[in-house]
Amino acid sequence: MKISETVKLFRTKDDFLLLTHKNPDGDTLGSAAALCSALRRAGKTAYLFPNAEMTEKYRAFAEPYHAPVGYRGAFTVAVDIAAEGLLPPGFSGSVDFCVDHHPSNTHYAPQSLVAPSKASCGEIVLQLIKALNGDVTAEEADLLYVAVSTDCGCFVYANTRADTLRAAAELLDCGADNRTLNVKLFRKVSRARMKLEGMIYSGMEFYRGGKISLAVITQQMLRASGATEEDLDDISALTGRAEGAILCITIREQPGGESRISLRSSPEVDCSAICAVFGGGGHAMAAGCTIQSPPEKAERMLLDVIDEVWK
Amino acid sequence: MKISETVKLFRTKDDFLLLTHKNPDGDTLGSAAALCSALRRAGKTAYLFPNAEMTEKYRAFAEPYHAPVGYRGAFTVAVDIAAEGLLPPGFSGSVDFCVDHHPSNTHYAPQSLVAPSKASCGEIVLQLIKALNGDVTAEEADLLYVAVSTDCGCFVYANTRADTLRAAAELLDCGADNRTLNVKLFRKVSRARMKLEGMIYSGMEFYRGGKISLAVITQQMLRASGATEEDLDDISALTGRAEGAILCITIREQPGGESRISLRSSPEVDCSAICAVFGGGGHAMAAGCTIQSPPEKAERMLLDVIDEVWK
Repeated sequence: MKISETVKLFRTKDDFLLLTHKNPDGDTLGSAAALCSALRRAGKTAYLFPNAEMTEKYRAFAEPYHAPVGYRGAFTVAVDIAAEGLLPPGFSGSVDFCVDHHPSNTHYAPQSLVAPSKASCGEIVLQLIKALNGDVTAEEADLLYVAVSTDCGCFVYANTRADTLRAAAELLDCGADNRTLNVKLFRKVSRARMKLEGMIYSGMEFYRGGKISLAVITQQMLRASGATEEDLDDISALTGRAEGAILCITIREQPGGESRISLRSSPEVDCSAICAVFGGGGHAMAAGCTIQSPPEKAERMLLDVIDEVWK
Repeated sequence: MKISETVKLFRTKDDFLLLTHKNPDGDTLGSAAALCSALRRAGKTAYLFPNAEMTEKYRAFAEPYHAPVGYRGAFTVAVDIAAEGLLPPGFSGSVDFCVDHHPSNTHYAPQSLVAPSKASCGEIVLQLIKALNGDVTAEEADLLYVAVSTDCGCFVYANTRADTLRAAAELLDCGADNRTLNVKLFRKVSRARMKLEGMIYSGMEFYRGGKISLAVITQQMLRASGATEEDLDDISALTGRAEGAILCITIREQPGGESRISLRSSPEVDCSAICAVFGGGGHAMAAGCTIQSPPEKAERMLLDVIDEVWK
């Protein structure tokens, strides 16, 4: 469906319920909240289905739009949700419309607005809001800036295109306060996170002359630093900072003692082939698996497999 | 002077020598190199004066444009240089033209193109190149992307405006390879730097319930991590990552034993007032000074003064 058709459809509907995906990020929450605001300005009743997995970081953006207890709505819109498995529990089969940017979108909704060329769902919602209301409020611009900027790591990730930068520029023109938002989203971390990073950097190991970087995060390190799940956002990216590292490994000891493995690589190495040996999967340049052993043993098993797969 | 007048003037000149500022950053080097390329396309002889203080990070961008030994040029252009004191040694009084974006530009050159509203000099040079040649090559776009992106921390710093983002979008349209450049400029650090960051985060101290964050970098830490001056780029920013910190202090022990202090703050605290007590200076939100004592003693002296200045 096109933007104009979507607007036409939305005008005929009311009592919107907007859904965000599992492990909600800035794009799903910011996009849904902005769309919610815009639908209300268009005279509609609209709410976000409260996402139980939302972290503190995004609470202030999404919570003001949360539906009251018992609200089910009459028209359910999935925002930034690529597949039914990523819906909140209980919504399988009951989505009426989907707005998304993931190329992997499974078109599970009867009607969809999917633009796979966009770096974020926020860019699509920006166009949608303009078509719906003719303008974007400063609050909507803030919410969409959260969506756009977080999905591309503040314009540093490889998915950042000229369009992404232009969308952000347009949001600043509409009043998005990028100064305050950037500090909150990208520049500040908890003291526990800093302490944990200190431990990770201090203990990082290198193999093959630095082509492999490896970090282990144990339960003991989490206890010592005071870091919680909230503090572990994108923690697997730290090993990737090492100059010269082609294959970057993060091993996280789980409360039960087993090891969760995250691999990231340059195109030279196929991460998913390595993780497949342990029953895991993913993409060539980012994959994961679980090894039913403590970190030290998991590390040796992993390095043995890497020696087999990456000659 | 306006862009069009600058182009007119440049057309009447030849044998350009382009200068970059002391402690050269991505903006001065990228802007000067891009302008050099564009002048050559316009049929001119043009070179960069080799900047002896250039770091490895930027060498590949600027070095191809370095003047051969003995080249002095006939028309000297200072690029991104706010004051004569920031010129390379020996050029005081001999600059013919200045292209700059610093609001503090002292107009030391007889003729200037200064646009203080721009986040980077690269944005001005982008306009200048388009006016001069009608287009921007992919290599010039890469160089200007280096200029624009590094001066705003890849669009995360408070100086990032809608114009900044639009300039970057335009450079991507012209062929700038932001994926490769972002990895090189913002995502990769040396192993020595990572090790040093580990030590800094592990040893960071907090006062007043976390409102003050403090890091000490000793000569011993530099030796143990193997970090050199090249690895210390923007190291004073680390203390500023701490959530809740209003005044962020970095103390760097110098080879001679004295302590170099860098302060950054939110508007609540005047850094320059604190540094002035020790004969230093700067801005309200970022200032520095040197204390002729080892870090431990310098820290106590500094905290005493802070208690006086910031009640």
